[in-house]
Amino acid sequence: MTTRAVAARRRGRPGLDLATVLERSVGLFIERGFDGASMEDLARHLGISKSAIYHHVSGKDALLGLALDRALSGLEEAAFEVRASQVSPGARLELLVRRSVDVLVERLPYVTLLLRVHGNSDVEREALARRRQIDRLAAGLVREAVESGELRADADPTVTARLVFGMVNSLTEWLHPGSGYTADQLADAVVATALDGLRA
Amino acid sequence: MTTRAVAARRRGRPGLDLATVLERSVGLFIERGFDGASMEDLARHLGISKSAIYHHVSGKDALLGLALDRALSGLEEAAFEVRASQVSPGARLELLVRRSVDVLVERLPYVTLLLRVHGNSDVEREALARRRQIDRLAAGLVREAVESGELRADADPTVTARLVFGMVNSLTEWLHPGSGYTADQLADAVVATALDGLRA
Repeated sequence: MTTRAVAARRRGRPGLDLATVLERSVGLFIERGFDGASMEDLARHLGISKSAIYHHVSGKDALLGLALDRALSGLEEAAFEVRASQVSPGARLELLVRRSVDVLVERLPYVTLLLRVHGNSDVEREALARRRQIDRLAAGLVREAVESGELRADADPTVTARLVFGMVNSLTEWLHPGSGYTADQLADAVVATALDGLRA
Repeated sequence: MTTRAVAARRRGRPGLDLATVLERSVGLFIERGFDGASMEDLARHLGISKSAIYHHVSGKDALLGLALDRALSGLEEAAFEVRASQVSPGARLELLVRRSVDVLVERLPYVTLLLRVHGNSDVEREALARRRQIDRLAAGLVREAVESGELRADADPTVTARLVFGMVNSLTEWLHPGSGYTADQLADAVVATALDGLRA
């Protein structure tokens, strides 16, 4: 049980607040897959009735939408910051990498869920469209950084952007809250590997 | 329909051979998730009866086992080649990256499926155990290459190996047979990004 749920119970509230419902639903979606988890499964997993879930949201798709928005709003905020920054394209690319790692570490289950979305519903397709905007920013920054001479001239901007952010996103495959790495350590490792290169 | 299935039909064979059953089952497993695809779904997707599938295999788990083995045997062959090689640790790491990209491109759906396995059954746990052997080889090579002075001294071997092969594996997120990149081009891009570094 989360601290928040314990606190809610101590205050004598029998239900769960939306944040807790969302957090624990995302855990089940990741474990079973979104399609593999029914409203019955969710209610059992949360230890509340289906109607207690419907008190907060209209259904599973609405929960998914809220969860994906938690990931996307963080990434969009990072993208906004990067677009507004006045540094060189290469430095903006590094900033986007670092801020993306921050969001991933801070909102790990939500980003994990986002990366598993394949466009099977309107909610998923809308999330993918928002994700593509950020991908386009990344590819644009690689292109500009190649043109400005900061990155290798032989780097294909589309493939390179996919590889760099594929590396960032691969953190969701093994990172967990107890893994003992800070966001800064991980961002340094990604920048060292993808931008500076590992060769001594 | 695959060329093989068309040929089989032309020869007047009503069923599908095991290779075709496997290939098309993997397509459905990727689309719906392994747990989301029932034997009924598979039979409908393949256009044959369930008993025609049981003619080849004992069930879904056996199909999954064969599919994962196609990915793992390719990666294990690459690992064997790398272990047998007499070059420096850094050169062996580069060889492992390049051969892994080859296997991924050549057996794309099978590797994609392997990367989605989370250990929900004996078949999946056995596949994960085999995958961990290869991960250990990769981390060992990074460690040796740091010690030999070929890679940066500040690289954490475990994190670095995960990031480099996370980048390799991220190819499964966007690569498709018609994407127009050869395995060599992709391997060059990964080596340029992860080992040589993107900075000019």
